[in-house]
Amino acid sequence: MTDFKPRDPDYERRVRESFARQRAMETLGMRLLRVAPGEVEIGLDFRGEFTQQHGYLHAGVVTAAVDTACGYAALTLTDAGSEVLSVEFKLNLLSPAAGERFVARARVVRAGRNITVCAGDVFALRGGGEEKLVATMLATMMRVGA
Amino acid sequence: MTDFKPRDPDYERRVRESFARQRAMETLGMRLLRVAPGEVEIGLDFRGEFTQQHGYLHAGVVTAAVDTACGYAALTLTDAGSEVLSVEFKLNLLSPAAGERFVARARVVRAGRNITVCAGDVFALRGGGEEKLVATMLATMMRVGA
Amino acid sequence: MTDFKPRDPDYERRVRESFARQRAMETLGMRLLRVAPGEVEIGLDFRGEFTQQHGYLHAGVVTAAVDTACGYAALTLTDAGSEVLSVEFKLNLLSPAAGERFVARARVVRAGRNITVCAGDVFALRGGGEEKLVATMLATMMRVGA
Amino acid sequence: MTDFKPRDPDYERRVRESFARQRAMETLGMRLLRVAPGEVEIGLDFRGEFTQQHGYLHAGVVTAAVDTACGYAALTLTDAGSEVLSVEFKLNLLSPAAGERFVARARVVRAGRNITVCAGDVFALRGGGEEKLVATMLATMMRVGA
Repeated sequence: MTDFKPRDPDYERRVRESFARQRAMETLGMRLLRVAPGEVEIGLDFRGEFTQQHGYLHAGVVTAAVDTACGYAALTLTDAGSEVLSVEFKLNLLSPAAGERFVARARVVRAGRNITVCAGDVFALRGGGEEKLVATMLATMMRVGA
Repeated sequence: MTDFKPRDPDYERRVRESFARQRAMETLGMRLLRVAPGEVEIGLDFRGEFTQQHGYLHAGVVTAAVDTACGYAALTLTDAGSEVLSVEFKLNLLSPAAGERFVARARVVRAGRNITVCAGDVFALRGGGEEKLVATMLATMMRVGA
Repeated sequence: MTDFKPRDPDYERRVRESFARQRAMETLGMRLLRVAPGEVEIGLDFRGEFTQQHGYLHAGVVTAAVDTACGYAALTLTDAGSEVLSVEFKLNLLSPAAGERFVARARVVRAGRNITVCAGDVFALRGGGEEKLVATMLATMMRVGA
Repeated sequence: MTDFKPRDPDYERRVRESFARQRAMETLGMRLLRVAPGEVEIGLDFRGEFTQQHGYLHAGVVTAAVDTACGYAALTLTDAGSEVLSVEFKLNLLSPAAGERFVARARVVRAGRNITVCAGDVFALRGGGEEKLVATMLATMMRVGA
């Protein structure tokens, strides 16, 4: 859609290094699937120890995946010395987070000097390549540092 | 502030039973601190395995605590046969989630027949009884069932 | 993208009749540009009497356009006897609402039995057919009645 | 609750001058009722030309009142040379905006160097001093300039 040009050609390394420092990502079993200018995907598997009362993945885990994807989507477009913080996000829960695997896909909607707005979706992956949208996020990120 | 009257005098038992069925609550080390008509508090300790890249508690964990508190605040006011689902929430992250313990406090803003709107805050608890506001949520809950 | 099938073949008439009953739409100079299953567009012209302190269109007017478009996008998919109310919305303001004309485009993200989630964008229309994104909304609508 | 100290003792004059430059405020019949450190109230009367399809005040007008109140609540705490922009807001609509007069009350939740988070409520004023909550907002404001 939009064609973002990264200011820092080494953006992917910065994203991967920051992701690796997030102990929550490892504990929650999340992994970076894709890092492109203005776009990041994070995958995770269903894990019974993170379920809510009906046996679906807890909304907090869904949030962790898509908020993280949104933040790194923003980070792909900053200069080398900057970091990104979540100012706020809104998440709509559309269907129960039922499935064996999930993917959170985030994209930059608008990259400003200090504020970047991102949108993200979480899909449950089912048999035969079917994807079911389970949640959608609209998030505000802020560049800090450097 | 508002004086909510529960429809079901046994509301606390329903909340505690539902909470106990959430495996994520146990895994994340969360516990129900307070259940009152229209109000719920959830406590959690800092745990290094759920941190983000700067060593603070991950926003997804903060979300899990306060979204759960909001949902159960709504549940205290439903009739006995109903359950509550999160339709959506917005979370503003106000300060780094730094601290040894945290508490998420949620209250019902307006209880409708099907839709209940809740507000929640997450505080870091520090030495000497000091509380620091780290995040604030506005959430929409929906009654289902029965 | 998604292919919505209206339950009521006469959905467009319902949307247009409801829109015509909104006195605010006339006062604000808004008009229905497009009504399709799950999609609605509303146009408006810049009007100096609805500006904020920097001479741009007020965020409340931008909201009126895109919230209304979201609501009617949801209404295209309900049965004949139902109406739609806004439960809540989040709007990110991305650029100053500067321009001579604007268009708000809304689409249904997920249509449930009672809750429908919509996304909407507001564009400023400039010379040469250029469109500039000025705001983006994520909204929750509820079916009522009948 | 919180005790905000304005950096600029002349904060009220700045708020009133900015408000006076908003042509939308005059057109919509809004007026500044109260300006205090971290708090602003805006009043408005019901006006038939700004109604939605059921004869209630349009959500866009409700938004205009409370978003403006939130922005000026943030502005009371900035230094003299700064202005405030709305980054985003979320509004929950709790009851029909029915009444002869309304008041939007906003307060700063947290004032940061660049980002200020505000909460606001809109009440319908009815006979005998009764106030009915019709909407609640959580908003993110950004300091700019100077």
